[in-house]
Amino acid sequence: MQEKQLHSGKKNLFFNKDYISEFVYGGIDGAITTFAVVAGAEGADLGIQVVVILGMANLIADGFSMSVGNFFSTKTERDTFERHKQIEYWEVENLREKEIQEIREIYAAKGFKGELLEQVVEVITADKEVWVDTMMKEELEMVKSDKTPYKTAGMTFFSFVIVGSVPLLSYFFAGRGPAIDEELFPFSCILTAVALAIIGSLKSIVTEKNLFFGILETLFLGGIAAFLAYFVGDVLEKMFVNF
Amino acid sequence: MQEKQLHSGKKNLFFNKDYISEFVYGGIDGAITTFAVVAGAEGADLGIQVVVILGMANLIADGFSMSVGNFFSTKTERDTFERHKQIEYWEVENLREKEIQEIREIYAAKGFKGELLEQVVEVITADKEVWVDTMMKEELEMVKSDKTPYKTAGMTFFSFVIVGSVPLLSYFFAGRGPAIDEELFPFSCILTAVALAIIGSLKSIVTEKNLFFGILETLFLGGIAAFLAYFVGDVLEKMFVNF
Repeated sequence: MQEKQLHSGKKNLFFNKDYISEFVYGGIDGAITTFAVVAGAEGADLGIQVVVILGMANLIADGFSMSVGNFFSTKTERDTFERHKQIEYWEVENLREKEIQEIREIYAAKGFKGELLEQVVEVITADKEVWVDTMMKEELEMVKSDKTPYKTAGMTFFSFVIVGSVPLLSYFFAGRGPAIDEELFPFSCILTAVALAIIGSLKSIVTEKNLFFGILETLFLGGIAAFLAYFVGDVLEKMFVNF
Repeated sequence: MQEKQLHSGKKNLFFNKDYISEFVYGGIDGAITTFAVVAGAEGADLGIQVVVILGMANLIADGFSMSVGNFFSTKTERDTFERHKQIEYWEVENLREKEIQEIREIYAAKGFKGELLEQVVEVITADKEVWVDTMMKEELEMVKSDKTPYKTAGMTFFSFVIVGSVPLLSYFFAGRGPAIDEELFPFSCILTAVALAIIGSLKSIVTEKNLFFGILETLFLGGIAAFLAYFVGDVLEKMFVNF
């Protein structure tokens, strides 16, 4: 095992990765859902105009919805932590004996006993900060997230819109001749695959896994989603035609 | 503060809520993104066929993509925890003195000193499980998630498809006469609003916040997303017409 893989400090290890993670998941979702709209519309032969209109509508509306959802979920996590911390402070103030007993049980489970256990309980419960911090980690198994809701939501939206616009790029060349128009969807497939491969390689940084595996996984996921959308579009179009 | 709000045990508090959370976020995303497709298509006057085809394509493809994304993200979280735990085991075996010093520093920060501090360090480092567990919580501030990837992904897909099909329900009555067709979008708006209100009230259970606030927040989010999609659809359609 190499030295650089070892734990040398919390901040270095987690700080930047947090927001890469938002970039990766926002980008994957943006590219896949926009490409699904494109593939669904192509499968149903709905025309270039529909692809561009609904692709753009998806980009803005879904990007907004995902970012705000992300904002609330990050915020809820932080709020939940703070609320439970307040409950612990209240319990430490008002149910002192019960909470002392909980600390005793926590440290007994770690192997402390007798006089040493009582001394440990005394030191932990002497400082309310340390006492509550111990209850949060050991009883509730909750730790505070470093992420701020505004940053996670902003990064998600940015990535969703930027990466998510890739499947639409080729359609901006629509109307330059019928020969080109027929190549728009194949070009969109290629561009989207390249974008997903790049973001898949970034993902392997977040998950600390094999680069090749990260790329394949992301491409596979995007491919299945697009296939499903194309297939649903195709089947439904035939149903409408035969209706 | 009422008794029932207090901390009485980890499992009761978190077990069921985990999957309600997946249901809530999957459902909100399903309803909002499908409704955005409907609103975008209506804004651009693309017709009922387009609404149904792309609404269904979005439901399947986006639902799939979101669930698989959820699967990998839950799995990554668990894998990351396990890998860092393995690193800690390795360090405890191979960098024994450094890790003992880290335990000493962690407990010194809690207020232990002198002979008592040394005794605490001795007990903690006597049991590798306890030692590594302490490093995970105190140095890395990581706790293991109770959620399993298959369950979170399954619940997300289920909720996405069920709640996400609500905006499309009224369109199944298309073709029963022109008077009815004009009412499809208003009906879809009402049904979607009801679904978002119900899921918003469930959300307030997850976030442990005010019921009214949870409902308003979800409705507001869905409303803005739909407005953006409708607006983008409308503007782009006019651009195409004038093109």
